[in-house]
Amino acid sequence: MTTISILGGTGHEGSGLGLRWAKAGHTVIIGSRAAEKAQAAAVELNAKLGVEAVRGLDNVSAALAAEIVVLTVPYSAHVSTLESVREAVQGKIFVDVTVPLVPPKVSRVQMPAAGSASQEAQNLLGPNVKVVTAFQNISAEHLKDSDHPIECDVLVCGDDKEAKTVVIQLAADAGMKAWDAGPLANAVVAEGLTSVLIGLNARHKVKSSGIRITGIDR
Amino acid sequence: MTTISILGGTGHEGSGLGLRWAKAGHTVIIGSRAAEKAQAAAVELNAKLGVEAVRGLDNVSAALAAEIVVLTVPYSAHVSTLESVREAVQGKIFVDVTVPLVPPKVSRVQMPAAGSASQEAQNLLGPNVKVVTAFQNISAEHLKDSDHPIECDVLVCGDDKEAKTVVIQLAADAGMKAWDAGPLANAVVAEGLTSVLIGLNARHKVKSSGIRITGIDR
Repeated sequence: MTTISILGGTGHEGSGLGLRWAKAGHTVIIGSRAAEKAQAAAVELNAKLGVEAVRGLDNVSAALAAEIVVLTVPYSAHVSTLESVREAVQGKIFVDVTVPLVPPKVSRVQMPAAGSASQEAQNLLGPNVKVVTAFQNISAEHLKDSDHPIECDVLVCGDDKEAKTVVIQLAADAGMKAWDAGPLANAVVAEGLTSVLIGLNARHKVKSSGIRITGIDR
Repeated sequence: MTTISILGGTGHEGSGLGLRWAKAGHTVIIGSRAAEKAQAAAVELNAKLGVEAVRGLDNVSAALAAEIVVLTVPYSAHVSTLESVREAVQGKIFVDVTVPLVPPKVSRVQMPAAGSASQEAQNLLGPNVKVVTAFQNISAEHLKDSDHPIECDVLVCGDDKEAKTVVIQLAADAGMKAWDAGPLANAVVAEGLTSVLIGLNARHKVKSSGIRITGIDR
């Protein structure tokens, strides 16, 4: 079992993933800019779990303490959080869940100059960090109910094959089918797809549209 | 019923779409740089259909003769074909099926400077052409067998709502479920997804992986 830190893990997406990973037996650390906020979120998750499996730390301490670091912050906090943990994540697997949404037009794909949020992360963290992207299309709605099946596949992009294999297994541990979707350059598809799904949600008055890969035995 | 011209319609993707639309009762024109090549492809499609429903013309004549113009050329012929039909398509619905693949790394997303092939088309054709993108993820493999169910949804992007509605209906006529996937800015997702699917095909030794939208009643 692995120690996973979820930076920005006090939000819906991060705490939903944390809940599912803790339930699968992983050691989960919730990170936040303020340690107290992270601790409060951990208390809440432990109450749901019925065991003391989650603790809360400030983002930098959380990043230092884990083998795998997951980033689930709003895009507005992306660069500042990356800068704060750059040293702490060297040599590690860094799972960027960030979607570069630009309010108010969140259903419109608007990528940053680097090409994608995760390319921005790779540029900023440097070549020794194994940046992998995943989970951008998973609605937080169903994540926090850990018995709810997730009807959305996960596209995993990154330039390190082994790191992708680890993340595909982490997705399975959280009840999701994940696929190796190619190099980090392909992350623009997964990040942009979130805007497409937000638009579909609005037009069809649903909360969690998703995608499934077809044509391959599951 | 509509007159649809398919530029570059001698290829697998274009003739597969043409076959299905002709079967649905539309008037289909195959376009090619050389009229004779287009005529030969039309003869072949008519033989499959058992009726004279398809004819072949050079690309410019084909574009002039139709209400809806569909572009299915390899990316290397994208700009030159657009330039050749610019005048002929003014005021029309222009369905760009082009994926900006850059051989040999076709499983890697590599968008042109304009952001996507279809944004390139819109820039080049001007604001009076209703550029809509669709069908980029549909494997030609199953299109040409018009009884074969297509297990892949179609993402339709464009800035003209009515034009998208027309294309969503055209997809249905060809046996496919299509979705309004937002503005033309979102086409990068549909175009890029083709590279993701090409990679999945290679890794899983299949020929036509695809996607389905989930979480919305169909």
